[in-house]
This record gives sequence, structure tokens and C-alpha cells, in this order.
Amino acid sequence: MFVLAAPTEDVWVQKALGGMDAILLDHAHCEKKAASTALGLIYRYPDRTSLLVPLARLAREELDHFEQVLAHMNERGIVFERQEPSPYAGRLMDACFRDEPRRLLDTLICCSLIEARSCERMRLLSENLSDTRLVEFYQSLLASEARHNATYLSLAEEYFPRDSVRIRLLELADIESSILREPSELIRIHT
Amino acid sequence: MFVLAAPTEDVWVQKALGGMDAILLDHAHCEKKAASTALGLIYRYPDRTSLLVPLARLAREELDHFEQVLAHMNERGIVFERQEPSPYAGRLMDACFRDEPRRLLDTLICCSLIEARSCERMRLLSENLSDTRLVEFYQSLLASEARHNATYLSLAEEYFPRDSVRIRLLELADIESSILREPSELIRIHT
Repeated sequence: MFVLAAPTEDVWVQKALGGMDAILLDHAHCEKKAASTALGLIYRYPDRTSLLVPLARLAREELDHFEQVLAHMNERGIVFERQEPSPYAGRLMDACFRDEPRRLLDTLICCSLIEARSCERMRLLSENLSDTRLVEFYQSLLASEARHNATYLSLAEEYFPRDSVRIRLLELADIESSILREPSELIRIHT
Repeated sequence: MFVLAAPTEDVWVQKALGGMDAILLDHAHCEKKAASTALGLIYRYPDRTSLLVPLARLAREELDHFEQVLAHMNERGIVFERQEPSPYAGRLMDACFRDEPRRLLDTLICCSLIEARSCERMRLLSENLSDTRLVEFYQSLLASEARHNATYLSLAEEYFPRDSVRIRLLELADIESSILREPSELIRIHT
């Protein structure tokens, strides 16, 4: 379904199911971060005008999801607060080239991989949770997470040759999967 | 209608009508900045949980307006690009206390003043422009600009005594109007 180099292992699913309070709090932070990443790209690349509308829309959807996660947290008495983030996104961004335009290509691909992994794991949550409301919630997010993955990839292909995107996507997908293989005590969407 | 210490002078209206390309480009930047300011407050004050949902909603609306301004620019062949910003918002934020919780109070009040001024000037544009599509566009934004002003003030009153908010609002409103009295060559929403 996506270009992920390796599927999520069952150990993550079991850890997540046993720590849904931490997962929901992390999920809220992830949606907020996804919105600010999209907005940050609009700030960094104002002259890449094809990015503006798709990323503004994507940021709006992430903020809408943020509000939805907060509502589910509220129902469960989970308070929104700071939480030690997974090193995942930072580690992935560290693998990006620093010089333009390769930095833009890498950033768009990394964002697409993060969306793809989020979608894969939300699907796993929706298939394995017993809480009906949360199952419905995660099912309802799958389509837009998949669309966000496609948005980032199509923006990459707007500015870079298709073959260059494909080659770099496979390289960064390997790195993404290797980051997730590193042991972590944290219960997060991306550990 | 709002607690603005002084109304906009006619000289601004005439300058704006004569430079609508610059005004539209600045407007797009202002909507983007308003979204990132709201999101930035969610990042800065995660423990002020009453801020989260109203500011996420507000940021979504600002991004929607950003997309709408881009569409109007596109119709007119105006390209989105970097533009020297008015010093207005930075000058206003410079007047805020740096220590918490006064910084939060001042920031919320300054945001409410910026929204109030934007609303006042968009109303002036809607009353004085001859371009029907732009008149309708600016009329359509007035309700949400006014609501954003009210959102920031009600959030201030959620965390601070009503009298403290009122006193500081009058002080900062004076500063806001005095910043706008400074001469400027720039054609912007807030000059």
C-alpha cells in the first residue's frame, strides 16, 4: 500500500494496546507537529507556490484531527500536557541533505514516510483495539492519512524528476524502518 | 464596536485602494502569520488547556482565509512571494511584558487588537473598493475577524480577572494606535 521498507512488528501493537493513554497523548502531539511542519514548509519555501494550497489544507486537516484527539482524551480524562517525544521524526530529518534543492526533496519524502507509517499504525490500532469509539475514530482517520502521504509525494514529483523521487524514497524508507528497529522504552505512535 | 483607541484615518484607505496588489499579498502573509501565532501559543502554553481547541479552530480559519486570498491573487495574476512586513505586529509584541503570566495576558490582548484592527480595515476596504468580487470577499471575512477578536479576549478573561484584562487592554490599545500613527512608506494592512 505504501513504500515502507518493513511492516510494523506485533510487539509495537501489543505495547500500544497496553498504553493507549500515552498513545493518545502522543497522537495529539503528532497532529499538532504535523500541522506546524506543513506551515513551516510554507514559510521556508514561499516561492514554491505549488506547495501553498495543498500544505495549508493539510495543516487544517491535521489541526482538525488534533481537536478530535483532544475530545477523545477528554472523554477518557486524559490531560493534554508535554510528553517526551519519540526521537523518530528528528532522526529521520537528520538523514536529509542540508543543501537545496535536495533538502526540499528529502523533507517532502520524509513527511510522506511519516504519514505512511502513521496510517499503517492507525490501521493496526483500528484492527486490534476493543474500544468501539476508538476503533471508529482510527478508521475515520485512515483515508486522510493516506491522502497526506500522497500529497507529499505528488508535491515531490511536481518539483523533481519521478525517478529521483523514487530512488530517494527507497533510500529514506530503509532509514525510516531502521530507526524503528532501535529499542525504545517509550510508548509512542512512532517507536 | 472594538476597543481601538483611534479609528483608521482616511489616508490609509486611499493608500490601500491605490495599492491593492500589495494589500492582497500582505493580507495573505497576515493570514499565514495569524495561523502560526495561534499554533505557536498552543506550543508555548500546552498546560493552558482552555487555549487548545479555540486556537486550533482559529488557526484553521486563518489557513482557510490564506487559501482564499491566494485564489483572489491568482485571479489577478499576483504571485505569492516574500514581502517586507509592516513593523506593526513586532512593535506591538515588543510592548508585552516578558515575565509570565503577564506575557500570556499581553499576548492574548495584542492578538485581539490585531484582529480588531484587521476587521476594522477589512470593513473599510469592503465599503470603499469598487471591485465587486473583492467587496464580497472582504465582507465575508468580517464575521470571523470579529469572532477571532472575541476569542482572544475571552481566553484572556478565562485566565485573568476581568478588570486586569480591561485595564491592560486600554493601555495596549493606546500603544497600538500610536504605532499606526508613525509614518510609513509601506502599503500594508497594518501601516
